Amino acid sequence: MSEKMRAIIKPGQTPGFEMTLVDIPHPGPRDVLIQIKAMSICGTDLHIYAWDPWARERIRPPIIVGHEFCGTVVERGADVTEVEVGAYVSAESHITCGQCRQCRTGRRHLCQNTQIIGVDRDGCFAEYVVLPVENIWVNPPDMPLEIASLQENFGNAVHTAFAAEVATKNVLITGCGPVGLMAISVVKASGARTIFATDISSYRLDLARKMGADYALNVAEVDVVDFIMSHTNGEGVDVLMEMSGAAAAIDQGFRALADGGEVAMLGLPSAPIPFDLANHVIFKGATIHGIVGRRVWDTWYRIRSLLSSGAVDLSPIITHRYPMEQFEEAIQVMRSGQSGKIVLFPDAVPD
Amino acid sequence: MSEKMRAIIKPGQTPGFEMTLVDIPHPGPRDVLIQIKAMSICGTDLHIYAWDPWARERIRPPIIVGHEFCGTVVERGADVTEVEVGAYVSAESHITCGQCRQCRTGRRHLCQNTQIIGVDRDGCFAEYVVLPVENIWVNPPDMPLEIASLQENFGNAVHTAFAAEVATKNVLITGCGPVGLMAISVVKASGARTIFATDISSYRLDLARKMGADYALNVAEVDVVDFIMSHTNGEGVDVLMEMSGAAAAIDQGFRALADGGEVAMLGLPSAPIPFDLANHVIFKGATIHGIVGRRVWDTWYRIRSLLSSGAVDLSPIITHRYPMEQFEEAIQVMRSGQSGKIVLFPDAVPD
Amino acid sequence: MSEKMRAIIKPGQTPGFEMTLVDIPHPGPRDVLIQIKAMSICGTDLHIYAWDPWARERIRPPIIVGHEFCGTVVERGADVTEVEVGAYVSAESHITCGQCRQCRTGRRHLCQNTQIIGVDRDGCFAEYVVLPVENIWVNPPDMPLEIASLQENFGNAVHTAFAAEVATKNVLITGCGPVGLMAISVVKASGARTIFATDISSYRLDLARKMGADYALNVAEVDVVDFIMSHTNGEGVDVLMEMSGAAAAIDQGFRALADGGEVAMLGLPSAPIPFDLANHVIFKGATIHGIVGRRVWDTWYRIRSLLSSGAVDLSPIITHRYPMEQFEEAIQVMRSGQSGKIVLFPDAVPD
Amino acid sequence: MSEKMRAIIKPGQTPGFEMTLVDIPHPGPRDVLIQIKAMSICGTDLHIYAWDPWARERIRPPIIVGHEFCGTVVERGADVTEVEVGAYVSAESHITCGQCRQCRTGRRHLCQNTQIIGVDRDGCFAEYVVLPVENIWVNPPDMPLEIASLQENFGNAVHTAFAAEVATKNVLITGCGPVGLMAISVVKASGARTIFATDISSYRLDLARKMGADYALNVAEVDVVDFIMSHTNGEGVDVLMEMSGAAAAIDQGFRALADGGEVAMLGLPSAPIPFDLANHVIFKGATIHGIVGRRVWDTWYRIRSLLSSGAVDLSPIITHRYPMEQFEEAIQVMRSGQSGKIVLFPDAVPD
Repeated sequence: MSEKMRAIIKPGQTPGFEMTLVDIPHPGPRDVLIQIKAMSICGTDLHIYAWDPWARERIRPPIIVGHEFCGTVVERGADVTEVEVGAYVSAESHITCGQCRQCRTGRRHLCQNTQIIGVDRDGCFAEYVVLPVENIWVNPPDMPLEIASLQENFGNAVHTAFAAEVATKNVLITGCGPVGLMAISVVKASGARTIFATDISSYRLDLARKMGADYALNVAEVDVVDFIMSHTNGEGVDVLMEMSGAAAAIDQGFRALADGGEVAMLGLPSAPIPFDLANHVIFKGATIHGIVGRRVWDTWYRIRSLLSSGAVDLSPIITHRYPMEQFEEAIQVMRSGQSGKIVLFPDAVPD
Repeated sequence: MSEKMRAIIKPGQTPGFEMTLVDIPHPGPRDVLIQIKAMSICGTDLHIYAWDPWARERIRPPIIVGHEFCGTVVERGADVTEVEVGAYVSAESHITCGQCRQCRTGRRHLCQNTQIIGVDRDGCFAEYVVLPVENIWVNPPDMPLEIASLQENFGNAVHTAFAAEVATKNVLITGCGPVGLMAISVVKASGARTIFATDISSYRLDLARKMGADYALNVAEVDVVDFIMSHTNGEGVDVLMEMSGAAAAIDQGFRALADGGEVAMLGLPSAPIPFDLANHVIFKGATIHGIVGRRVWDTWYRIRSLLSSGAVDLSPIITHRYPMEQFEEAIQVMRSGQSGKIVLFPDAVPD
Repeated sequence: MSEKMRAIIKPGQTPGFEMTLVDIPHPGPRDVLIQIKAMSICGTDLHIYAWDPWARERIRPPIIVGHEFCGTVVERGADVTEVEVGAYVSAESHITCGQCRQCRTGRRHLCQNTQIIGVDRDGCFAEYVVLPVENIWVNPPDMPLEIASLQENFGNAVHTAFAAEVATKNVLITGCGPVGLMAISVVKASGARTIFATDISSYRLDLARKMGADYALNVAEVDVVDFIMSHTNGEGVDVLMEMSGAAAAIDQGFRALADGGEVAMLGLPSAPIPFDLANHVIFKGATIHGIVGRRVWDTWYRIRSLLSSGAVDLSPIITHRYPMEQFEEAIQVMRSGQSGKIVLFPDAVPD
Repeated sequence: MSEKMRAIIKPGQTPGFEMTLVDIPHPGPRDVLIQIKAMSICGTDLHIYAWDPWARERIRPPIIVGHEFCGTVVERGADVTEVEVGAYVSAESHITCGQCRQCRTGRRHLCQNTQIIGVDRDGCFAEYVVLPVENIWVNPPDMPLEIASLQENFGNAVHTAFAAEVATKNVLITGCGPVGLMAISVVKASGARTIFATDISSYRLDLARKMGADYALNVAEVDVVDFIMSHTNGEGVDVLMEMSGAAAAIDQGFRALADGGEVAMLGLPSAPIPFDLANHVIFKGATIHGIVGRRVWDTWYRIRSLLSSGAVDLSPIITHRYPMEQFEEAIQVMRSGQSGKIVLFPDAVPD
């Protein structure tokens, strides 16, 4: 093993990333060293690239970015017995303390001391990454690299989609970014009756249809609330999954929600927004679930089930593949909005 | 039975109520006629009295006001067999259609065609009221009149308090109006560990202590979030019950909420408010329940249990009693904020 | 309308049914009179036909039998406004009191005073039936008669299948009678990962495969527990749906259940059976749901969703159709075990 | 620290225990060494003492027995940072693998590879015990030793009591051994309306009254089902907590259960028993929860809340205290049935 590796880093307090050579990290006694086989780009990476207010507040450069990946365990710490060298793995990107009340009551995703790789410590857009063995998930051997890399992000969709019962119910998904698209496929596989999806991009709405949306509605062209009411016997949707973080979509979603309906919210508004608690929540008798991260490991077991059984096929949303060297082009395509998920490979793109 | 009765009415589209003589109503085939024994004043009645924007939008005068009461069945319609003449009763004030999806799936409190007595049709601030037998609740014979009258309103508190599990948990109740005060007693009886209550009125905070609050905090004097954090080992409260409808209290309540906590919201903001969905709901992994009305009859069975067993004693919050004739004085005391619940009696106040 | 109608009755305290002419019943003020268009035979009807110990205990002949049907409203009582004459309807067969605690808390299926049509009062194997309007369910106009007739029985399957979450989970259904077969289709439509079904009849196991079972196992030929363990990574199934009432199947099902699994039990053992509570329930940390009837109307809304969306197709299990006159032949085929559901028509079998 | 310690052991494959000197164990890298301050005797210890069929099957002597205790951390392994030397601790007695699906989905109490101290590996009836740091629970500094020692066993009661909602509900607890007695106090603290408790020992029924039972019924003297029906308006109890493992009590409990009721079962029948699934579970629409161990750490947080707030006072059930040397007398008293919990101390009994 060479002592240096290529890595995509946030070098300083300005927009952009760069690729550079850094030391290959060494695993501690309860860590494993993983050789990266594929890595995928998340919206969070774009925030860090753009150096927006959230990034400025949170990120301490220089740092290796990236948190979605798959790879092979090449070395393990002295006290690791749970995972073999050679194992084909992905990872939960939230490193948790194990000591707070949330960690100790089955809610690691709400850990009071979470460190996210690629955000709070070095990430996976590199040839190698070190992670605690508690964060390692062994993949089925026949899972394609690019699918395995997507699982962390798919987990956001799965966590959201299972926050409310959808079988036999009408569901609205507001926002058809990659997580919204993946959520469509999950609620489809879970027996939702009619799936409405909304976005402002016709590119994304085409993908929404491919992932199983019955109606993919462009909010610029259709009165979404009217459309939904007229297609649900005037009742509205039973379940809203909010994936956009946009105030207008949130308002629209709640107006289209049936009285007594359930809402799972994942999309992050960048600031407080005017919200009609009386009409959207209280008079409606609505239940709202805030969703963050993935349930560890409940969500991952569901991921395995959905992908292994073929109930969900994520391949339609992987629209671009690049060698890691072309990360700049990948980032720009992603920023254009004309993409689904983009996967990078350390070397050549596999056939 | 005389043909006329005294009634407190909203006579027209201006502030105020008046007492007048009106015809005693006749029950239809599935209705009962009830002679009123006690009636209690709700915040909703004050809105109608004041003729505020909500009232102007909703109320069509002339109408008999009032929706909290107890009384005796004196006549029943031809097709009524469920309740005897002479029965001592209170009533669910929401008259529901029985035909909408919500009614047909055990969620009458979310009926799409609800009519509330004293709001959408004649109410109970009178000597008699007619109600569908489906809305009648038979009281235990030994229940005091003034307590029996409070049950409808107590039901709001009970519905809210049972929206989240409170046993062994820390609970914050924001807003110590009558419903907040009653909710304190319910969560106390249900095994809450520490109960924090907030308000801006020292009069109400004194009542909060009487009803069982461990800490009754004046938001003008105490930094509520700091206080709660320092009294919960830095964890915050597990459950928030929002009874104020005030933007500042809502914000404060969510900031004091532990990650993964639950919120039941009953207080109605009068307009959309700025709300920090990212930090209050999503990152927090919170669950929010919008609460309206009472579950029919689940909430009423809980009411019976809490009052009959002595687990809850509502008498401390009944601060004033008047003969019906003095309704104007009662309304003014209620508007002053220097009261708990106020009960009116058709004739003399009983000993 | 003629004053007499043909009806299949249990004439007396001996095995068998007969067809005879009886008076067409008259609806009371809250009843409707329905002209029957299709009727389907249930296992319960076979018990009554055979005059087994349960039937002797429960049935008071003479009585018109049958409780599954669809038809058209031809007359309505004076106080009925909810349903139009001419409406195409089916019905909840359990007539409930509306007054017991279970009825008053959204659990009509557990009514303390239930009367079942065709069991406790005249049923629907006739040209007409009278039912309270509270029991009427309006069908979509394009639903085939034979499917509409099945809905009451399908509701047992739906109620059972929704007692536990099945999406992404492995499920075992023990017993492939009609309700077990229909349950297979529901858990399939709801995203179950792998569906195991067991029976002793190869005829029924063939139907199980058609309805969506991944593995339809003959317990006479396969060691079911071993098979399931080897096909679930040694974990067992997450959910057991017990539809057989057979002691051996129940024992097998619990042994194949993963620790922490969920069980929905619908099949009725005819007597107490030896049951290993320590190993099957307590050490396993299992949760068991006893299932009876249908949730009114929650289950019926799910029925509508599953059938209208095409998520479930019940037609493969309708194996025989007869004119009502040939009820004796229909009963004998049903008793042979070589059938799925059998539908009778008042006159000729429709094309 | 001396190199030998006193320990109560199961020396061989015959009834009885003996006290002997053994080596003080050494902690591994993730273990802590605890000096025992108090230890309490559980029914399981009596089974091992008696060398009954379960014990013969499970126990491999020689082994130090005991699994309930409190003590002080005196040494910690090289990789332990979570707990300080000097910490006052108790412990979860189930040592779990962390790798099975149950462990990885927040259900450590159902670990597929559980080792229980004092059963599968050396226990705590000794001057010292070694445990993995993952099993350590830090006690409040002011908690009395004898109460701290009881927490593991109290956790069984807490786990059972929180399996079903009890606030405003009528509850029956069948079996007033220590866990049943503690469960009474928990459901009392959680707002149960009326608590019925049954046993065959008047000694235990006296303790049941002290712990908060409204009615403590001797099954030899009272027709329990009749009594409960006549004290619940003919409805039966909403919740059954089965703590006896006795077939007659189980049958009685289910007969006293209201339709739609919930059952939590902890008591272990020693063999399969005849069980009326049709009438007790299916027609009743009952839900049954099998309970084993404690939820880690959810149950322990509840324990802390209940004891720290004073909501539960366990002191009435501690009926005997002995120095460890008198373990034989303690065991005999416990076997007599004339005791609640018995606590042993390594040296003199504290004042």
